[in-house]
Amino acid sequence: MKHDFYIGQKICEEKVFTSQDVERFAQISGDCNPIHLNAEYAKKSRFGGTIVHGILLTSLISKIIGMDLPGEGSIYMEQKLKFKKPVYVGEKIIAQVVIIEIDNEKSIYTLSTDIYNLKDQCVVQGTAKVLYER
Amino acid sequence: MKHDFYIGQKICEEKVFTSQDVERFAQISGDCNPIHLNAEYAKKSRFGGTIVHGILLTSLISKIIGMDLPGEGSIYMEQKLKFKKPVYVGEKIIAQVVIIEIDNEKSIYTLSTDIYNLKDQCVVQGTAKVLYER
Repeated sequence: MKHDFYIGQKICEEKVFTSQDVERFAQISGDCNPIHLNAEYAKKSRFGGTIVHGILLTSLISKIIGMDLPGEGSIYMEQKLKFKKPVYVGEKIIAQVVIIEIDNEKSIYTLSTDIYNLKDQCVVQGTAKVLYER
Repeated sequence: MKHDFYIGQKICEEKVFTSQDVERFAQISGDCNPIHLNAEYAKKSRFGGTIVHGILLTSLISKIIGMDLPGEGSIYMEQKLKFKKPVYVGEKIIAQVVIIEIDNEKSIYTLSTDIYNLKDQCVVQGTAKVLYER
């Protein structure tokens, strides 16, 4: 199976994280920072509105890696992330995961893992390394 | 306030991610990889049991940064992660966040963000950069 993969192979996926998603993530993680949850507080902040937790955004990357590229059986080894711009609760984003390097000997795939907003601004820039044997 | 912080300042926090946490995270993120959710499947895998999503583990780091060190008002800029060992569903872990560098001019804090299991093995090794003005 692994020889089906090639450099430049890409998956894009759209997602909107709703206020319900953000509240549920806050409950699971315990991260109840008001910038994510309290509209009044967030309005007065530098962002002007509630924003999605950076790690919740990253969950979309993890989902693509674990389910689509390389997919089931992937073992997540590394993830580097730069949070470049806020993503507001209810804002549509597009995650783009691309194979940028393949080490066939070690079965390790390096992926670029970036998230964009609808203004085509990169909001989260990242790279991941994944072990994938099958 | 920011001058209260010092290099070596540390927060440790214990946590157990339950099967309910993992299921809820799978619902929010869409990451329904059976290694996290299906006991039968996971038993036959290299891990021998269901494991917690790496990004769900990282949510504990995000919680400490956003609520405790530096705390409310933190702006997450960067996170680097190495997933070194599996964490099983129901296993107790300890996150340790330590200030390792302070750039007072730019108000940027560099933190080591590591997670350990009860065998004192580092399961997630990381560093973060946070902007914190107050």
